[in-house]
Amino acid sequence: MKARVIVTLKNGVLDPQGQAIEGSLHSQGFDGVQSVRQGKVFDLELQTADADEAKAQIEAMCEKLLANTVIENFAIEIIG
Amino acid sequence: MKARVIVTLKNGVLDPQGQAIEGSLHSQGFDGVQSVRQGKVFDLELQTADADEAKAQIEAMCEKLLANTVIENFAIEIIG
Repeated sequence: MKARVIVTLKNGVLDPQGQAIEGSLHSQGFDGVQSVRQGKVFDLELQTADADEAKAQIEAMCEKLLANTVIENFAIEIIG
Repeated sequence: MKARVIVTLKNGVLDPQGQAIEGSLHSQGFDGVQSVRQGKVFDLELQTADADEAKAQIEAMCEKLLANTVIENFAIEIIG
């Protein structure tokens, strides 16, 4: 079972990395960029063939390791 | 116009960071994990209200700054 996890900063959490990228884009002439926020993607392969079980396992992984749930949100997408 | 860019390593490109995460997951008891590959997400806000123009601009940003197209793929998703 393949799955994708997308981890993004919660609204209101400062993102200096995103701001730096925004500054670089502006200095390269991309003036139409109003905001950039950077997050992380994890592409996982799991042994289980059961989508619900996979989702439950990945949720536990996010809570424990993949995301810092104080400042980050995560979204799980089962690809199949 | 809001858009999301997902940058992932091409197949065959080594991902030591993903391997480290896989190791950590195993050591925390998540034995069912067969592979982890890490990528990046950029959530962008652009001034333009035209989806095609936004996509063209973002493609240029990816080629120039957001992705290293030698070793990375990028996917653009217009959110609206």
